[in-house]
Amino acid sequence: MRTVYVNGEYLPETQAKVSIFDRGFLMADAVYEVTSVLDGRLIDFDGHAARLARSLSELEMQNPLSRDELLEIHRELVRRNGIEEGMIYLQITRGAPADRDFVFPDPDEVKPTVVMFTQNKPELADNPAAKRGIKVISIPDLRWSRRDIKTVQLLYPSMGKMAAKKAGCDDAWMVEDGFVTEGTSNNAYIVKDGRIITRDLSHDILHGITRAAVLRFAREAQMEVEERPFTIDEAKAADEAFITSASTFVFPVVEIDGVRLGDGTPGPVATRLREIYLEESRKSAI
Amino acid sequence: MRTVYVNGEYLPETQAKVSIFDRGFLMADAVYEVTSVLDGRLIDFDGHAARLARSLSELEMQNPLSRDELLEIHRELVRRNGIEEGMIYLQITRGAPADRDFVFPDPDEVKPTVVMFTQNKPELADNPAAKRGIKVISIPDLRWSRRDIKTVQLLYPSMGKMAAKKAGCDDAWMVEDGFVTEGTSNNAYIVKDGRIITRDLSHDILHGITRAAVLRFAREAQMEVEERPFTIDEAKAADEAFITSASTFVFPVVEIDGVRLGDGTPGPVATRLREIYLEESRKSAI
Repeated sequence: MRTVYVNGEYLPETQAKVSIFDRGFLMADAVYEVTSVLDGRLIDFDGHAARLARSLSELEMQNPLSRDELLEIHRELVRRNGIEEGMIYLQITRGAPADRDFVFPDPDEVKPTVVMFTQNKPELADNPAAKRGIKVISIPDLRWSRRDIKTVQLLYPSMGKMAAKKAGCDDAWMVEDGFVTEGTSNNAYIVKDGRIITRDLSHDILHGITRAAVLRFAREAQMEVEERPFTIDEAKAADEAFITSASTFVFPVVEIDGVRLGDGTPGPVATRLREIYLEESRKSAI
Repeated sequence: MRTVYVNGEYLPETQAKVSIFDRGFLMADAVYEVTSVLDGRLIDFDGHAARLARSLSELEMQNPLSRDELLEIHRELVRRNGIEEGMIYLQITRGAPADRDFVFPDPDEVKPTVVMFTQNKPELADNPAAKRGIKVISIPDLRWSRRDIKTVQLLYPSMGKMAAKKAGCDDAWMVEDGFVTEGTSNNAYIVKDGRIITRDLSHDILHGITRAAVLRFAREAQMEVEERPFTIDEAKAADEAFITSASTFVFPVVEIDGVRLGDGTPGPVATRLREIYLEESRKSAI
């Protein structure tokens, strides 16, 4: 049984509960982060800690933990659960006031709720999907407009994932005004004539921590990177495509809406970027 | 201390908890209803039960309670908490699977979570805000696109309420493409030359149970009703304005973005509709 973290306590997962008045439960008033673990060490921890702080700040929510406290809890969970490869999920809510109210509670009276748990994934690095490539469908992007804040308002991405599954695919790319925003829980990329194209940062997409690292590695490897929106039609005509996220690292995309990209196998750019990312991330893991 | 309902049990509110793996907590995968109580009886219960069933159905979520079971729990909570005037909040989530996953859990294995609690409001009918009228600001509508489904994705409405509070006002009307969608937790109306104008039903707004009743009463009273979008500028130039919701019934709006409507006091149409609504609702309460 997993040991999880809830508001300062390490508990068996079956005893890990929050009040029904928690604003994370009643109002999706909560943000989260997912940090991967390889070789028992944390990948891109500081990037996730920085983005967490930004999400909290955008919502005028207190940050209850310093970077070092956050790191300590992550490491303690890794240790207690014996995680060699997997993820650490972290969620912070605005806390549990005495009653439900749209008005934010007084931060002097109601402290944020902090929940963290591990997910053991022995095949995280050696994932079969990375060798096979994934298939995506496109769906309209019906989410709220502040996707740069990593909130738990994940109902629509979850519905998108289900729509993909029903279509025999792995994920859904969301499309707004003809342009791809991102995948249900990842950033989206295409490759055309050797050039990597991915949507530029704005309120429209999550500012992926893995995205930032992968683009840095791509530029260091002298690959051309163009940050701009691309259409779903452009994607279907691309030479290759891929996604990035903290838990998938880099996954090649081999099919979009039933259209095979290239010969339908993972492309060289995605494959190379996955190798570089894994190698560099393992080196800098803490 | 309140007695609340969680998954078949009546519990003291301090013991009312849900798993941290509940999809309502992790993914806002949950819907809700708020039913008002006057004279210890439920207002528009069947309307709320029907909308609940529709919200669940739109999300392919099981409805764990029959109409009669739902009614029985509502009444038991009213009884146990001695509610004469107030609200019953109900939330149903897709349940708590063994782990976090964007994919919906198998409904044969994971049952929905049902949470209900009362809110005692002795001044619900005799609310001072109804006599004074409320002031609203306008904000852009940044919510997701399926506002007809009553999900707990209430972060943005909550932020809107805070923005209103900071501006010294009571609520915010959300504006999309120049047109008012609705308030943070209510439907929006204006009155011009004796005609009641309110946005027509679509995915853009909540299909208010109180809205349906108020429009029916208005038509029965020979008032003219026009269901169409109106702009925020049109609203500022209106003779009067008001909101409806299960917990406010009808509240006059006396100011929009600092612009006073009429003489800045509640208008006759809103005042009359509130009277009719309260009278008729009390009669049909169960």
